[in-house]
Amino acid sequence: MLNKLFDKLEGYYEEMVAIRRHLHQHPELSFKEYKTAALIKSFYEELNIEVKGNIGGNGVVAKVYGKMPGKTVAIRADFDALPIQDEKDVPYKSIVPRVMHACGHDGHTAALLLLAKSLNELKDELAGEYVFIHQHAEEYAPGGALSMIEAGCLDNVDVIFGTHLWAGEPTGKIQYRTGPIMAAADRFEIDIQGQGGHGAQPHKTKDAIVIASQLVINLQQIVSRRVNPIDSAVVTVGSFTAQNAFNVIADKAQLVGTVRTFNEEVQQFIESEIRRIIEGTCYLSGSTYEYRFERGYPAVVNHAKETEYLVQIAKLVPEIQIIEETEPHMGGEDFAYYLQKVPGTFFFTGAKPVYTDTVFPHHHPKFDIDEKAMLIAAKTLGTAATQIHTQ
Amino acid sequence: MLNKLFDKLEGYYEEMVAIRRHLHQHPELSFKEYKTAALIKSFYEELNIEVKGNIGGNGVVAKVYGKMPGKTVAIRADFDALPIQDEKDVPYKSIVPRVMHACGHDGHTAALLLLAKSLNELKDELAGEYVFIHQHAEEYAPGGALSMIEAGCLDNVDVIFGTHLWAGEPTGKIQYRTGPIMAAADRFEIDIQGQGGHGAQPHKTKDAIVIASQLVINLQQIVSRRVNPIDSAVVTVGSFTAQNAFNVIADKAQLVGTVRTFNEEVQQFIESEIRRIIEGTCYLSGSTYEYRFERGYPAVVNHAKETEYLVQIAKLVPEIQIIEETEPHMGGEDFAYYLQKVPGTFFFTGAKPVYTDTVFPHHHPKFDIDEKAMLIAAKTLGTAATQIHTQ
Amino acid sequence: MLNKLFDKLEGYYEEMVAIRRHLHQHPELSFKEYKTAALIKSFYEELNIEVKGNIGGNGVVAKVYGKMPGKTVAIRADFDALPIQDEKDVPYKSIVPRVMHACGHDGHTAALLLLAKSLNELKDELAGEYVFIHQHAEEYAPGGALSMIEAGCLDNVDVIFGTHLWAGEPTGKIQYRTGPIMAAADRFEIDIQGQGGHGAQPHKTKDAIVIASQLVINLQQIVSRRVNPIDSAVVTVGSFTAQNAFNVIADKAQLVGTVRTFNEEVQQFIESEIRRIIEGTCYLSGSTYEYRFERGYPAVVNHAKETEYLVQIAKLVPEIQIIEETEPHMGGEDFAYYLQKVPGTFFFTGAKPVYTDTVFPHHHPKFDIDEKAMLIAAKTLGTAATQIHTQ
Amino acid sequence: MLNKLFDKLEGYYEEMVAIRRHLHQHPELSFKEYKTAALIKSFYEELNIEVKGNIGGNGVVAKVYGKMPGKTVAIRADFDALPIQDEKDVPYKSIVPRVMHACGHDGHTAALLLLAKSLNELKDELAGEYVFIHQHAEEYAPGGALSMIEAGCLDNVDVIFGTHLWAGEPTGKIQYRTGPIMAAADRFEIDIQGQGGHGAQPHKTKDAIVIASQLVINLQQIVSRRVNPIDSAVVTVGSFTAQNAFNVIADKAQLVGTVRTFNEEVQQFIESEIRRIIEGTCYLSGSTYEYRFERGYPAVVNHAKETEYLVQIAKLVPEIQIIEETEPHMGGEDFAYYLQKVPGTFFFTGAKPVYTDTVFPHHHPKFDIDEKAMLIAAKTLGTAATQIHTQ
Repeated sequence: MLNKLFDKLEGYYEEMVAIRRHLHQHPELSFKEYKTAALIKSFYEELNIEVKGNIGGNGVVAKVYGKMPGKTVAIRADFDALPIQDEKDVPYKSIVPRVMHACGHDGHTAALLLLAKSLNELKDELAGEYVFIHQHAEEYAPGGALSMIEAGCLDNVDVIFGTHLWAGEPTGKIQYRTGPIMAAADRFEIDIQGQGGHGAQPHKTKDAIVIASQLVINLQQIVSRRVNPIDSAVVTVGSFTAQNAFNVIADKAQLVGTVRTFNEEVQQFIESEIRRIIEGTCYLSGSTYEYRFERGYPAVVNHAKETEYLVQIAKLVPEIQIIEETEPHMGGEDFAYYLQKVPGTFFFTGAKPVYTDTVFPHHHPKFDIDEKAMLIAAKTLGTAATQIHTQ
Repeated sequence: MLNKLFDKLEGYYEEMVAIRRHLHQHPELSFKEYKTAALIKSFYEELNIEVKGNIGGNGVVAKVYGKMPGKTVAIRADFDALPIQDEKDVPYKSIVPRVMHACGHDGHTAALLLLAKSLNELKDELAGEYVFIHQHAEEYAPGGALSMIEAGCLDNVDVIFGTHLWAGEPTGKIQYRTGPIMAAADRFEIDIQGQGGHGAQPHKTKDAIVIASQLVINLQQIVSRRVNPIDSAVVTVGSFTAQNAFNVIADKAQLVGTVRTFNEEVQQFIESEIRRIIEGTCYLSGSTYEYRFERGYPAVVNHAKETEYLVQIAKLVPEIQIIEETEPHMGGEDFAYYLQKVPGTFFFTGAKPVYTDTVFPHHHPKFDIDEKAMLIAAKTLGTAATQIHTQ
Repeated sequence: MLNKLFDKLEGYYEEMVAIRRHLHQHPELSFKEYKTAALIKSFYEELNIEVKGNIGGNGVVAKVYGKMPGKTVAIRADFDALPIQDEKDVPYKSIVPRVMHACGHDGHTAALLLLAKSLNELKDELAGEYVFIHQHAEEYAPGGALSMIEAGCLDNVDVIFGTHLWAGEPTGKIQYRTGPIMAAADRFEIDIQGQGGHGAQPHKTKDAIVIASQLVINLQQIVSRRVNPIDSAVVTVGSFTAQNAFNVIADKAQLVGTVRTFNEEVQQFIESEIRRIIEGTCYLSGSTYEYRFERGYPAVVNHAKETEYLVQIAKLVPEIQIIEETEPHMGGEDFAYYLQKVPGTFFFTGAKPVYTDTVFPHHHPKFDIDEKAMLIAAKTLGTAATQIHTQ
Repeated sequence: MLNKLFDKLEGYYEEMVAIRRHLHQHPELSFKEYKTAALIKSFYEELNIEVKGNIGGNGVVAKVYGKMPGKTVAIRADFDALPIQDEKDVPYKSIVPRVMHACGHDGHTAALLLLAKSLNELKDELAGEYVFIHQHAEEYAPGGALSMIEAGCLDNVDVIFGTHLWAGEPTGKIQYRTGPIMAAADRFEIDIQGQGGHGAQPHKTKDAIVIASQLVINLQQIVSRRVNPIDSAVVTVGSFTAQNAFNVIADKAQLVGTVRTFNEEVQQFIESEIRRIIEGTCYLSGSTYEYRFERGYPAVVNHAKETEYLVQIAKLVPEIQIIEETEPHMGGEDFAYYLQKVPGTFFFTGAKPVYTDTVFPHHHPKFDIDEKAMLIAAKTLGTAATQIHTQ
């Protein structure tokens, strides 16, 4: 059976690439992935596979039923894009200004679609049920996972698998980890309210750009001086907005950013240290602020048994040459929520592009993946899903 | 004659307020003041006053000819607005999002229009010629003055007067100064090119927001440590733009700002110190930059004889209670160019609003003027223009 | 035999406290511990125990020979103090201004002396040889360990043990770890050469205090933005010196600090990032610098077999209630060098003072230990040393 | 008479240089100028000139009585040195470590001594009385002037003159100004109390060096953003002290500095803004502080009539080629107090060294003067003092 699955996936590789490139050219932001969701849904409809849209938002869930009884296995792929200007010079470059698939979700989706198509064609030889969870809005908390779970996408599911294509590792490598593999990811917003005025009269104003710049610098001390060096933590200001005419002193500035931790105590400490630093920085400049801290996804904590299982079955995929334990990643993932409900594991599939020497990290304007890795992801997920019945 | 002029202006005060409020509700940005220019032009056309539009851009110049021979006197008012969101709570609040008459140019225009109308009605009693220069684009270098002069607006002009309504001083006060009254005003842009990436992986990036924030802080030292404390100078970063998703590390940041000086040596020194500080700050973070420094308006340097004349004739305006010498202002004005061509003087007309205790500075989102000051400005400019023939 | 040893140590507890307090009142800085070394030497001489001074500096080594053949076991205690002003309010407070036993080495020494005295009295019942290494200069790289080893203190030694009294953990707890237990500890010095002058004329100077302050702030980014969050690292500026009259602008400033890492790649990266940040910061201010980076002690890497042995024998010490694995500590220790030569293990002995609720960390002006912990340390080291022959 | 005076001074020029060089080699700090005071006193005693020591501290006052009646004229020279290490390479370099005549007071003293000697020899041709005020402690507030005035040094004095040798201007130039010529000079001290600890455990401390460095950076904004750019002001941190071992995190840091202003409103504003910035900076780091602000010397305000007189008589000194009005200096001077009591004027005597191309500013470790300027100072002061009777 496994060989048949691999043959089918190889036969569909061109279609997989075509879908991925179409998605790459037409990215949609989190919670606004209407056309992407419609495309996914009609893909299944054309194949007469059971499918439902609008699951907890723009989510789409399809199901394939094996002939034999068995476990219900879910596989998840996310499909939203990011507010980044695509700066690659490739034919499939995004045509939407300032929106880009800069994290590989287009590849996740294409891999899962063709895996579903292949499994559907093999369903007479399969045991169990297969749930294909196409999740919207992974990039933007509160994310799509929680609402899709609330809408029932995990009902009766026994085990779940998911992967992330990873441009930092070569194609042919799989990375796993038992326990925390991805960090808790929180979001904060800080609005500084200074006092605007004419650019030539600083003494009559409270310069919001100077205050916010100080704040950015002061926030560096949380990680450098206040968190135990043994604990991993990240405080990033990702956005600084105070757009004005050149001859104006800024009234307001907005900072938006993220905090990453593996440990709730550190998470709480950082939330309160940010407040303390804002308070002091605003006090010294006579300005005011609003601070919102939104807890994002919790850490992704892989289950031991399913992770060990993954390591075993990965050996059955011919393209996989390296199977290694990874350090935990600081990035967040709302796959965390699925693993809070059902057993499973989340792993990384190496996808380093070969057309360039420079590897651009995820969320970079020149980010890309090696498309061959989609095939490996599909094979690995397909193997994990079908071999579970032999355990 | 002067009493007639004052009576006429008082009679037209309601119209003056109406025009000012209309302009206040419909502000237009520098170089885009099409409707404002059209409104000014049709005002003159309806009165059969000689008028030409499109002078050096959106500029409008009207002329009234006195019956007797005499000097040619120009009076100038600017009419552009600023990219600021009006936050006042008044019926005449701007209806254009993020555009606002936050510097009083609406009042300058209304005062000049009704002064022209009044003088036109009195032309049989007047000597000389009166040139009404309605200038576009004062707020944004290279400004409108230079191109209007090149288009001939000062041809045959013997003397020029201009004023700025000034919300920081009470209505009834006039401020003058011989020599430099307003600073040279330059514009700079700094583009920081870091290396973007995922918000959870700072070690793979060069965080453009941290770099640009440091730069803002480091630039403070130019004025605090490097310019002679005896010399006045301002370095303002008015705009900081690095808008991204919260979980991205910024690839780029843009700073835009202004430098104010009274002295070319200091101006050059600051231009080169900004470069030195950018270079060092980018070096230490491994990032790159582009830096553009555009010389803006030179200092406004009033002529001695015309300034002394202004002090004398201001005593003839009944509403003026205080005539005082002012410190030089750090703000720039392209009135500077007119004074490089013909003699004249530029002065401040107190216009502090009385409906609020707080005085919001020019370019503040809640800036407003006392409309009564428009009448005083019109009377003072009208007196200066007509009494010059008696000198 | 073990009970006899414990009885003896309990009997000598008062003497142990007296010696510790004497040392506490008379602390000596690293490499200048002449009187402390003399005290240790004469302690052994009075007991007719074989002893040699001036081992690789101020080091002292004593030996006790068991009657039966067996392994040669070394136990090490350090005895230098720190340049810190003692601010405790206790009778045994340091009487030397700005010198203090703020790390517990006085306790290490007292514990080892009485352990040696006890073992000497029991030598007829013992197997093997016992080497008591009293090491000078642990606090200041290059430290005393390396020169004592070169002088032969480890010759013929089969195994070594050492402990650190630890004020952050309660008395009765022992902490162990296989592999890296303490970080590599490097030292750096940065001399900033600005240009001095009169405090009222900043524009004629390059203010070394402003430059060095910026540098301190900029260095925070190494840990917050440039090192992988998964890797532990510390960059501390411990000393900032630019002492001048109030009305002078500083010519020079000196920063001295430490870097802690567990990984040579990170160590090298930080060494070069510090240089990059100094270069950029000096460039932007037109100043110059000297930068010295001295590799200090390597990480303390415990041997697996000896660490497991320690965990077993610790159960024989009645006062020990908790035996737990510790996270690695960022602090450096030249015990690292002994473990590069011979097998052994280094562990922490909880010593939290009970007379105060606040725990002052090591190197704090109010640091103190619970003296009872000295007895536990002596018993644990004694047990480890004598039971090794039964393995 | 004037020619005789000039001849005498020229004849004594070698002695003047010798005394200046002796003082230069043996500088003494403010309030500790015991040997300098003794040298001055014995100089007068050997000439049988009336002299008193210990006037309001280490001050010395001598008197010469002209034969004819006339005004009582005081001339003042200060004689203290600074805590700076002399780095010049000249034979008369300071032999006292870290103490240096880096402001020219040695030259003031030598000039006044030989002027007194010369006038004493000419006393039969002179009218009026001559009071030679040798003032201690000009460099360190509260200074010596106030206590010398309280001790009576100005009793019966009608007019006072003083000068400062000025290395920034060429020999042969005199600079004067009516009204404020030197700034108010205040002193502040800030003690930061963080929480010390081990250099490897930042999370258990509040790093006083990081806090104080931030404070230095934040203080830059007072001048760059908060004081009206039209007003001159200086905020200098001259001393930053937090000296510790490299592996300690600093418990405390001390900043000491100066504020210079010409205007009491600005002075008060800066005093309170410093407090606000300290408060905010300490709050954000959870640390505490002490802040002391000591008003120093007020601005030196020259009297109009005496300044105009000085301009006239300066023309009588052959070496003076340029007499020019100066901008006000930011430096403080306790000559201010004399001018609050009696009319007079304080001026600058150009003294740029000719042996080097680089001019090192006052208070620089390589500061020096052109000794010829002492002769010009003596002639100018002597002329001013003797010609006053002809007014």
